[in-house]
Amino acid sequence: VIRGSVNHYARGVGATADQTTTAAPGTLMAAEMAEQPSRLAALLARRREVVRELRALLPDRPIGTVLVARGSSDHAATCGRYLLEMASGRPVSSASPSVHTLYRSEVDFSGHLVVAVSQSGRTPEIVEVVERARATGGRAVAITNDATSPLARSADMVIALEAGDERAVPATKTVTCQLAAFAMLAQALGEIGLDDASAGSLPGQVAHVLADVDPAVQLAEWLLGANRLATVARGLLYGAAAEAALKIEETTSVFASAFSAADLRHGPIAIASTGIAVLAFAHPGPACADVLDLVEDLAVRGARTKLAGPVPGSDLPWPAAAPEALAPILAVARAQQLARFLALRMGRNPDAPSGLTKVTVT
Amino acid sequence: VIRGSVNHYARGVGATADQTTTAAPGTLMAAEMAEQPSRLAALLARRREVVRELRALLPDRPIGTVLVARGSSDHAATCGRYLLEMASGRPVSSASPSVHTLYRSEVDFSGHLVVAVSQSGRTPEIVEVVERARATGGRAVAITNDATSPLARSADMVIALEAGDERAVPATKTVTCQLAAFAMLAQALGEIGLDDASAGSLPGQVAHVLADVDPAVQLAEWLLGANRLATVARGLLYGAAAEAALKIEETTSVFASAFSAADLRHGPIAIASTGIAVLAFAHPGPACADVLDLVEDLAVRGARTKLAGPVPGSDLPWPAAAPEALAPILAVARAQQLARFLALRMGRNPDAPSGLTKVTVT
Repeated sequence: VIRGSVNHYARGVGATADQTTTAAPGTLMAAEMAEQPSRLAALLARRREVVRELRALLPDRPIGTVLVARGSSDHAATCGRYLLEMASGRPVSSASPSVHTLYRSEVDFSGHLVVAVSQSGRTPEIVEVVERARATGGRAVAITNDATSPLARSADMVIALEAGDERAVPATKTVTCQLAAFAMLAQALGEIGLDDASAGSLPGQVAHVLADVDPAVQLAEWLLGANRLATVARGLLYGAAAEAALKIEETTSVFASAFSAADLRHGPIAIASTGIAVLAFAHPGPACADVLDLVEDLAVRGARTKLAGPVPGSDLPWPAAAPEALAPILAVARAQQLARFLALRMGRNPDAPSGLTKVTVT
Repeated sequence: VIRGSVNHYARGVGATADQTTTAAPGTLMAAEMAEQPSRLAALLARRREVVRELRALLPDRPIGTVLVARGSSDHAATCGRYLLEMASGRPVSSASPSVHTLYRSEVDFSGHLVVAVSQSGRTPEIVEVVERARATGGRAVAITNDATSPLARSADMVIALEAGDERAVPATKTVTCQLAAFAMLAQALGEIGLDDASAGSLPGQVAHVLADVDPAVQLAEWLLGANRLATVARGLLYGAAAEAALKIEETTSVFASAFSAADLRHGPIAIASTGIAVLAFAHPGPACADVLDLVEDLAVRGARTKLAGPVPGSDLPWPAAAPEALAPILAVARAQQLARFLALRMGRNPDAPSGLTKVTVT
């Protein structure tokens, strides 16, 4: 049986056994969130090196890109998917590991770039996809926290996040560093707005968000009665909305799903009439008007709606100066804050959510 | 503002104004579901023609495939994605229309096959992606119900579903015909098990499922108290699980989400402790053991679990003789039945769910 969760559960157990009995609830998650500005600054400082290395690996532009990831890493990959598609002008797909690990289909990755994302770099099925890709002519980049991991060793090139150990079960600093790594990769393939100015400003913008706790506390209070949450976004922020849903679900067991604004209109909009709580993410840019418009429509239909981002009427703002390509990092920092406050307010320990501590490695 | 839902709402309005005031609730949906065996038989009879036409369009194998769809069509595309990846051995991606319609990124589809899926063929953003793909060197196949639609006219090749008008708001016969069309396309690129015997047996297998109502009635009764449902599958059936979640959510407003078994283990498994209802889909094949194993794990953690498919302990079986490539069609027929019975039992009209009848075309 292939498991995608080995490292996840292992982290859960570590936190339970070693940390959460001695620290106040939410301490680990807060500490790891607080590391983000410095970890991001260190990572972004290596962006010229990444550009150089990727261009050496890929003298010709890839004919397509395949992303391999699970869980929070997969949400970072969803944001990365838009960035890489815009930067490369070529289709970007998300691998279905089961095609390789269970069905064992014959494949041909020649000309394709594979980007594999895993915090620990120890998820066997992700390593297996990378190995099959390289064996059939693909080039592989690993985005991982551990430059000595099996995943790192299996790839042609590694972007080591150097985010440090993650001891709280909900991944935080790893995810925002993964998002930054995708921006660096994309900038190596095309222009997405990651220049000296935006890279230099981002860590301070994240610090600003993390210090500005009141809006997140208030939004957590508003969410307290909800047992259903829909997060909504479109385009570059969609992956951030997916990560927000997962983070809230992981830490609070509130049932949360992410929708692209376009998909929500195409059927599931009926759930608005149930009075569901909706949290929409928007940043100034081409996708913004569509999201704001949907939020109005949802409110008319009976949903309880809140807005996140530097937009009019926002309940959870972040700095508008960031280019949209980096906005997912600010949105995810907001989502971490919200998930943590909501879990604490519900009397739960976000460092070690129930149900996530059992080792199920086989 | 780009809308993906024009035809969807238009159908909703039609049903409200013309039909649902005169027919008993659920009549339209039942009639359209009942057409499926004959519609599928007629479509599958054209499979040699599809193989011939596709091979003429693509003398060389595509270097990648891009799928474009929304809503239920997107769930058919998710099943198609596994089939095409297994058949072609090349990456298959799901287009993000916003990259083209909102961000207007420069793109290059040369060497790629685009498969666009839309019941009406009138969703402007899908037509736009096809036009951009062809203008930059891609080849496009349209899967649509209307061979004279803008989408059909924009593509190199059309698989006309000829499923007839769909007047109930929840798409049924269109979705199963789309799934059959994907199987035909995939069989043109590689071996997926669609031969004379399996194509000939499928319509009868669907008829058998539709006539066997008791298990679906009982499962609807079991779901009655649930306000949260997780559908689960892996591999070829994952898209069917996603369609099941959408169909139930559309018709009943019960909050439903689909999970791949691997993703559910990687974090959201915590929701099991909330006593959530879980409906897992499995068919004999490489992905089956993983799903059955997860269901046991979820039950231990406190979830209320039920199984669909021809597997031990199943609550909602379908014929085991179908190849796994065609099992999504049987799973979706079961999901339609379940959604319809549950909606009726809840006093709702599945033909015209609330919230889905307002025209929002702009």
